[in-house]
Amino acid sequence: MSEMSTTAVVLAAGKGTRMHSAKPKVLQTILNEPMLYYVYAALAPLFRENILTVIGHGAEMVESAFPEKKDSFVIQEEQLGTGHALQVAWDAVKKNGATHCLVINGDTPLVTVEALDRLTSVTGCCDLAFMTITPKDVGTFGRVVRDEDRRITSIVEAKDFDMNIHGPITGEVNAGIYLLKIETIEPLLDALKNENASGEYYITDLVALAVERGLSVDGVQCGDDISLMGINSPRELVVAENTLRRQTVDELIDAGVLIHNPDTVTIGPGVTVEPGAEIFGHCEIYGASYVKAGARLGSYTYITDSTFETGCNVKQFCHIEGAGVGPDCVVGPYARLRPGAVLKRGARVGNFVEIKKAVLGEGAKASHLTYLGDADVGAGANIGAGTITCNYDGKNKFTTVIGEGAFIGSNTALVAPVSVGRDALVGAGSTITKDVPEAGGAIARGKQININRRLKKSD
Amino acid sequence: MSEMSTTAVVLAAGKGTRMHSAKPKVLQTILNEPMLYYVYAALAPLFRENILTVIGHGAEMVESAFPEKKDSFVIQEEQLGTGHALQVAWDAVKKNGATHCLVINGDTPLVTVEALDRLTSVTGCCDLAFMTITPKDVGTFGRVVRDEDRRITSIVEAKDFDMNIHGPITGEVNAGIYLLKIETIEPLLDALKNENASGEYYITDLVALAVERGLSVDGVQCGDDISLMGINSPRELVVAENTLRRQTVDELIDAGVLIHNPDTVTIGPGVTVEPGAEIFGHCEIYGASYVKAGARLGSYTYITDSTFETGCNVKQFCHIEGAGVGPDCVVGPYARLRPGAVLKRGARVGNFVEIKKAVLGEGAKASHLTYLGDADVGAGANIGAGTITCNYDGKNKFTTVIGEGAFIGSNTALVAPVSVGRDALVGAGSTITKDVPEAGGAIARGKQININRRLKKSD
Amino acid sequence: MSEMSTTAVVLAAGKGTRMHSAKPKVLQTILNEPMLYYVYAALAPLFRENILTVIGHGAEMVESAFPEKKDSFVIQEEQLGTGHALQVAWDAVKKNGATHCLVINGDTPLVTVEALDRLTSVTGCCDLAFMTITPKDVGTFGRVVRDEDRRITSIVEAKDFDMNIHGPITGEVNAGIYLLKIETIEPLLDALKNENASGEYYITDLVALAVERGLSVDGVQCGDDISLMGINSPRELVVAENTLRRQTVDELIDAGVLIHNPDTVTIGPGVTVEPGAEIFGHCEIYGASYVKAGARLGSYTYITDSTFETGCNVKQFCHIEGAGVGPDCVVGPYARLRPGAVLKRGARVGNFVEIKKAVLGEGAKASHLTYLGDADVGAGANIGAGTITCNYDGKNKFTTVIGEGAFIGSNTALVAPVSVGRDALVGAGSTITKDVPEAGGAIARGKQININRRLKKSD
Repeated sequence: MSEMSTTAVVLAAGKGTRMHSAKPKVLQTILNEPMLYYVYAALAPLFRENILTVIGHGAEMVESAFPEKKDSFVIQEEQLGTGHALQVAWDAVKKNGATHCLVINGDTPLVTVEALDRLTSVTGCCDLAFMTITPKDVGTFGRVVRDEDRRITSIVEAKDFDMNIHGPITGEVNAGIYLLKIETIEPLLDALKNENASGEYYITDLVALAVERGLSVDGVQCGDDISLMGINSPRELVVAENTLRRQTVDELIDAGVLIHNPDTVTIGPGVTVEPGAEIFGHCEIYGASYVKAGARLGSYTYITDSTFETGCNVKQFCHIEGAGVGPDCVVGPYARLRPGAVLKRGARVGNFVEIKKAVLGEGAKASHLTYLGDADVGAGANIGAGTITCNYDGKNKFTTVIGEGAFIGSNTALVAPVSVGRDALVGAGSTITKDVPEAGGAIARGKQININRRLKKSD
Repeated sequence: MSEMSTTAVVLAAGKGTRMHSAKPKVLQTILNEPMLYYVYAALAPLFRENILTVIGHGAEMVESAFPEKKDSFVIQEEQLGTGHALQVAWDAVKKNGATHCLVINGDTPLVTVEALDRLTSVTGCCDLAFMTITPKDVGTFGRVVRDEDRRITSIVEAKDFDMNIHGPITGEVNAGIYLLKIETIEPLLDALKNENASGEYYITDLVALAVERGLSVDGVQCGDDISLMGINSPRELVVAENTLRRQTVDELIDAGVLIHNPDTVTIGPGVTVEPGAEIFGHCEIYGASYVKAGARLGSYTYITDSTFETGCNVKQFCHIEGAGVGPDCVVGPYARLRPGAVLKRGARVGNFVEIKKAVLGEGAKASHLTYLGDADVGAGANIGAGTITCNYDGKNKFTTVIGEGAFIGSNTALVAPVSVGRDALVGAGSTITKDVPEAGGAIARGKQININRRLKKSD
Repeated sequence: MSEMSTTAVVLAAGKGTRMHSAKPKVLQTILNEPMLYYVYAALAPLFRENILTVIGHGAEMVESAFPEKKDSFVIQEEQLGTGHALQVAWDAVKKNGATHCLVINGDTPLVTVEALDRLTSVTGCCDLAFMTITPKDVGTFGRVVRDEDRRITSIVEAKDFDMNIHGPITGEVNAGIYLLKIETIEPLLDALKNENASGEYYITDLVALAVERGLSVDGVQCGDDISLMGINSPRELVVAENTLRRQTVDELIDAGVLIHNPDTVTIGPGVTVEPGAEIFGHCEIYGASYVKAGARLGSYTYITDSTFETGCNVKQFCHIEGAGVGPDCVVGPYARLRPGAVLKRGARVGNFVEIKKAVLGEGAKASHLTYLGDADVGAGANIGAGTITCNYDGKNKFTTVIGEGAFIGSNTALVAPVSVGRDALVGAGSTITKDVPEAGGAIARGKQININRRLKKSD
């Protein structure tokens, strides 16, 4: 088999009518990642760069969801069936001198590396091999027919299956993942016909053609897991998602992560959690997040693409995207960290505080009702309640720099670009438009006038 | 049966002692709707306006919960049993010349239109018919006794049941929903006695009286679903609620709604969700809400009586009541939309923002820490962080008008009534008490003073 | 048995390697209470003050988690096994003249008073008694061997068990909770050897020694609940926690508390909820909280150590710690009450409001985007949106006093120490640094300047 080299072709051109969505089906998400993410994840260890994706419906959406794959998309302008998709991709398949082609649907997120590896290693010497499963309910899947020597003779549609002709029901069905030997299958590809009810070209028909022409055909049995059959409806997606959700959470607990109330917790496939981390109920953690041992994520916390260092304590109801939470930081409740928020060791972000593209130095604090955007806050600075960086003038964004040890009084607006010097103090209620000197003070507010009657609006 | 016309009587006068609540039992909620809501919903298609409700305990609370039913309540001053309740309602029952009367308890939220339809259509020709079920556990329910020809002979209390007298246990029990022929049952109603342990008049006794007097009596078998028996305790309510919750969510998924983590999602009976909408975990959606195809409701979102147009994206932790979210709007996280909040196409409401009785024009934005109440915001206006409409003077509410394309600087108070003209700009940190001219600017803040030392309070 | 007096010894010195945590295992929490809390709770009714705890790994952490136990800790400097722990504690055990010693692991939070009571009462007359269980899966637990008269002969490690020697597998295993008669067991304690693979001294070995020396030994069978065996891993903790979670919620529902969507609700062991209270989905309630009949806690609410009076209504997404919510108060959504927040009858706290160490008088309101810290707010006062008490100057905290009926305009900073008199009015957008007189008014802001062009930053 030393000569075998395989290109994988992912069929991802379909609309997925039963999803009732403007999004192409392969972009529907499971644990916040598109289905296609899972298929690529299963293919990557075996096929690396040799993966083509046939797209059609919503092609631009697929392209922009996977920019790193941009040179590997093949556009199927008209969707004339799986066989047609393969014909469209065929030149690209052969380009790198591949000897074999693996074909897989983009809507099979539960496929595993192991299953694919089995198909390729067991059947590398056939002309055509395909994966079969024996589900509890054979439903309307195409049935695999074998002769007395267990050789494949055909795949028969459920409605055409006849025990007198095809023998007893074995329950083995076609999972729709194929390994084709390019040299011998190429002529069959041209011979596909669309003389059927839907007028489409089907890959399935290759099996019959191959048997007919005496090629070697094999079906690799891959258990009873119906999830390999692909996802066609919200119900199927929800079932697959729940399977993956439980699996992920269970594996983490067994590895030593303490996940309280795990039935209410969701963790995505790209998240790393070290043993010794503690996660509370109703959390959702997605993307390429990383949670270190000794980090603690409170209940009802929603996280994407963020990192959490040892000893940090994220309280309840936080919303954290693209942020870095340093060691021993305390965050929340109700803190929102947006992309580019970086909290250094021991920094604290409290309730109703939003941090965007801003660094909080070691031990800096922003405890209440604050917006820090495009800011650089020095170590030990104290940002009073109600502080707002006015970083936007309707057109551009500007930066606010707050020095180490500075103290910003409550209810202060900092009109960027502006800087407050190290150890400076800004009086409460100020609107700061000019730089404040180091160790100096600034105040910008009206003087208080008391009157011996209640005010009127005209005052 | 062309002559049959039926008045339904809902018995809703009880306290429901086992609920331990000041609220009358029929107002205890299931998926945020009172139990009585469900009974009315099942009765409405069959009986339309011909529905009377006997109320007693907490009568005013029931009346104010269902103002649209105000002319159909009958007050039972003293609660002397179900038979007495029917006696109290009897004149009203006959008022519109009805030939029949259907009696149902107000604490049976799981009753279906189908079951009621069956009772009325099958038994319209009897003098007295009632629904029976055959639950797994007959418990202490009244047992139905039939003779060898399967004709009802009596209903016997569990404790009085004797196999020697009443024959083998069939498991069929009385569900307590009756259809009475007014003409023939009226004399029996007067004959009811309260010579029993609790000194109350029971409708159940009508069955024995009817059989005794040779009237036609029938029991309509309605399966084994014990939920028809009514809800008497928090446990029974919780079980019924969970049944309905799952049923609602499952039906939506099967219809094509994508509901992630459905075990954590709750959707009320009056909510419409179109196939192609996407709902994430831990959401609760109640009231007369409407979610269109292509709308997306993020995790931990709490919704009542609101509408969501195609392409809108509600992020996590939102709280939305009585609001309208237009196409392509982006809302949250942590946005609170209160009654009268209307977001036009592409408007954006961000974190820690409250909108009440206010319209945001197309593409207008209020992204952070803002309160807009009684306001009209023009298309494309930008409301800075920390903006507050001061709409209340302690007595009255006033309106703020912000023109198209206006820019409100951060940390600004707008003291209503006030208007900011089209394309005008308000400086950050201002308190605006006078109208700002179109395309003009306004500023209202103290000038900044810098000092070369840290400030003292006395500064 | 009148002479029997027992000291309980809790073994709590272990690290719990499989928890992968810097915290000692007994401090890992279940429903927000350390495991040790549960063991103490089960011991307290039987042993009152006569409870010793052997600590070692993370000793200071255990001491500071249970300050009320401070005189009852015994330090085991080196962790040389359970037998060694008991040796270390032995002098303290005997100090009050106890006749018996009960030994229990600190990682068995599911142990019940009943089980302990059974062990002590049934076996008080033996020299050595221990609890046994017969779990579904005997796993690697030490197996109990009895002779034909059902007398204990030994405890055999799973790997050493031989049916030819030890008789048929009965499935009875050692639960590791011992009752020792001090007088007769003392000599055995000195005889313990550490000649085993891990070089530790084991209490288990006392059994063999006792039988060998002809002492009376008994095994008390305590059912099949494997949870008595102690918690060694996140998986075991999560399973135990879920068991307790369900049990607590179910008991409350059966007692008459209405808990909607109970699978998503968590209530700690120290929480009291009266029948007639209503709790919605996704709530977590911990600590020594008290919820009265007629209180209503909305969905997604996180509570610790707080009290809720009749008629209060806590809306969704609240975070409440160490606070008191009075009768008929309305709180939230998104309200954060921190320790020392006290809401008197009918007070209202709205969205994005934080209250810390502050009293809100009867009917006082703080409805939006506010921080009240170290404050005393009079009855009927109205705190406008965006009000902030500036209670901190970087070093100390100061108090704000707001009189009855006062009206604080929106977007106001109150620089403490400061007081606003009864019925006084503060203008919106003010920074108040001086006391405001009773029934008077105060204003502290720049006058508004309108310009007929859009502002520049330099304005």
